[in-house]
Amino acid sequence: MNILGIDIGGTSIKGAVVNEKGEVCSDVFSLPVPKGEDQNITMKNLINISINTIENFGQEVSGIGIGIPGAIDSTKGIVTFSNNLKWKNLKIVEIFKKSFNLPIKITNDANAASLGEARFGAGKDAEIMIMFTLGTGVGGGIVINGKLFEGKDGRGAELGHTTLIMDGLQCSCGRKGCMEMYASATALIRMTKEEIIKDKDSIIWNEIKDINEINGRHAFDAMKKGDKTGERIVKMYVKNLSEGILNYCNIFRPDVIVLSGGIAKEGKFLTDMIEDYLEEHEYGYPTSPASKVRTAKLGYNSGIIGAASLLLD
Amino acid sequence: MNILGIDIGGTSIKGAVVNEKGEVCSDVFSLPVPKGEDQNITMKNLINISINTIENFGQEVSGIGIGIPGAIDSTKGIVTFSNNLKWKNLKIVEIFKKSFNLPIKITNDANAASLGEARFGAGKDAEIMIMFTLGTGVGGGIVINGKLFEGKDGRGAELGHTTLIMDGLQCSCGRKGCMEMYASATALIRMTKEEIIKDKDSIIWNEIKDINEINGRHAFDAMKKGDKTGERIVKMYVKNLSEGILNYCNIFRPDVIVLSGGIAKEGKFLTDMIEDYLEEHEYGYPTSPASKVRTAKLGYNSGIIGAASLLLD
Repeated sequence: MNILGIDIGGTSIKGAVVNEKGEVCSDVFSLPVPKGEDQNITMKNLINISINTIENFGQEVSGIGIGIPGAIDSTKGIVTFSNNLKWKNLKIVEIFKKSFNLPIKITNDANAASLGEARFGAGKDAEIMIMFTLGTGVGGGIVINGKLFEGKDGRGAELGHTTLIMDGLQCSCGRKGCMEMYASATALIRMTKEEIIKDKDSIIWNEIKDINEINGRHAFDAMKKGDKTGERIVKMYVKNLSEGILNYCNIFRPDVIVLSGGIAKEGKFLTDMIEDYLEEHEYGYPTSPASKVRTAKLGYNSGIIGAASLLLD
Repeated sequence: MNILGIDIGGTSIKGAVVNEKGEVCSDVFSLPVPKGEDQNITMKNLINISINTIENFGQEVSGIGIGIPGAIDSTKGIVTFSNNLKWKNLKIVEIFKKSFNLPIKITNDANAASLGEARFGAGKDAEIMIMFTLGTGVGGGIVINGKLFEGKDGRGAELGHTTLIMDGLQCSCGRKGCMEMYASATALIRMTKEEIIKDKDSIIWNEIKDINEINGRHAFDAMKKGDKTGERIVKMYVKNLSEGILNYCNIFRPDVIVLSGGIAKEGKFLTDMIEDYLEEHEYGYPTSPASKVRTAKLGYNSGIIGAASLLLD
């Protein structure tokens, strides 16, 4: 069984044919989306390149799966709102159906990646897997017995928009104190800046010329070199992230938590610290086993594989 | 179809036969459990009274459903730990199977009540219903498409043990700042005491002789009479409760939220305030509809009906 998987991003759209083992088995196309491009033009280009990809592949393709950033109504096949692409109420499945006589499914991009990891990656053996994508915000997806749980009408699972600190930092969603304000890569960078300003002895100062160069690796790298400020920042960040994850553990009791995004590159150094925190605080531990924490495995093409996996049943 | 529903509480056990419409259709038994009673004696008495109830009912009974407070492994049929009853690793289904040749299911008592409300009560028309029981703590249950969602091995859905304020008040679960510390009846009583001490003009002082008489109704009653302190307490409490509920809205996007416990007796006065708060803060509203908030309908026998409904498929 072969499925065309499409991964829509803010500035480019990637796609390829994926087989039932979750392997990319055609060339990967990459279609740039110039800022402010009319959505009709984007859709026309995307459909043309999809037709070409399927034709060039030469074998039967049984469906198309698409991951899209933003609020998606996966039941109705509509992009309710995508801030990155400036798409609003786009009936994307209906548009695709005009050119393809195939089953077509859509979901949020983070949900797609989560499903891919659950089926072919870090959550392959999990009954309940929750993935957190740590980037500008905190996204992710919930997979239960191999199926995405997206909430009613596919509008839920806004993982980053659960409270860590009521009345805390203003979040873009309108609430204050969301997990995403304390556990995203953006939050780690903010915390690093705030802490090193207080401590000019930190070796982080040697690595940068300008405080705006600070990225999500500086605190981790400094901690590994024995820097106390780096260690303090990482421990604060790990606590924030673990507390956010713990909420999901106490609701879903997942066997596996998967982390993706740049910060996940810290690997076992990061996941060991989180596992220790979960063991210490998870409800009912040690009567019930604590959740395992792993990093994502599918890499660069995870969005394509994840989108295709919507139809790989 | 008739099922024996059993509702185990900390000091007594109730039970009755329930039909497929969720109606109690036999006498309701009530078995006291003296403090510190040996669990073997309790089980023996419970099985005897269950046999008598089924025999007296006269018609066929097709199963037994049991709701139990504490940590329950519903898959294995074991009471992992019940603090109220001091039961530990009790293989309750195995014990019942020795006396009854019937399917037997168990779950947490709050889960049982939630399933009852979803099938026969306030959540009858809901695709996703989440019930919050506001009492000493905050319990509840999640029902998706008519089925309980209890997390892996039935160990999740600890609704009250999600963070509202990281590093906040110490919770009995080991974490700090859980929803239960800010949104339970206990929390409302604590807040009422704290606030009226600061304001001797509040009419709440007229209602009581001693501050320890304060209960969950005082602030609501005072607010209804125009008391500013009462109003301030209720608004703080409604905000706490709504913020806790919002986390679940952003994850599950339930169509219906049900409130039970003493505070739920405030009815529409309370649910209107919460609905207003949700509309203002729910992720993606008004693009997506906000969740409706209702109070529980099944009343005194909800635990029995809920437990029986485990087998009413």
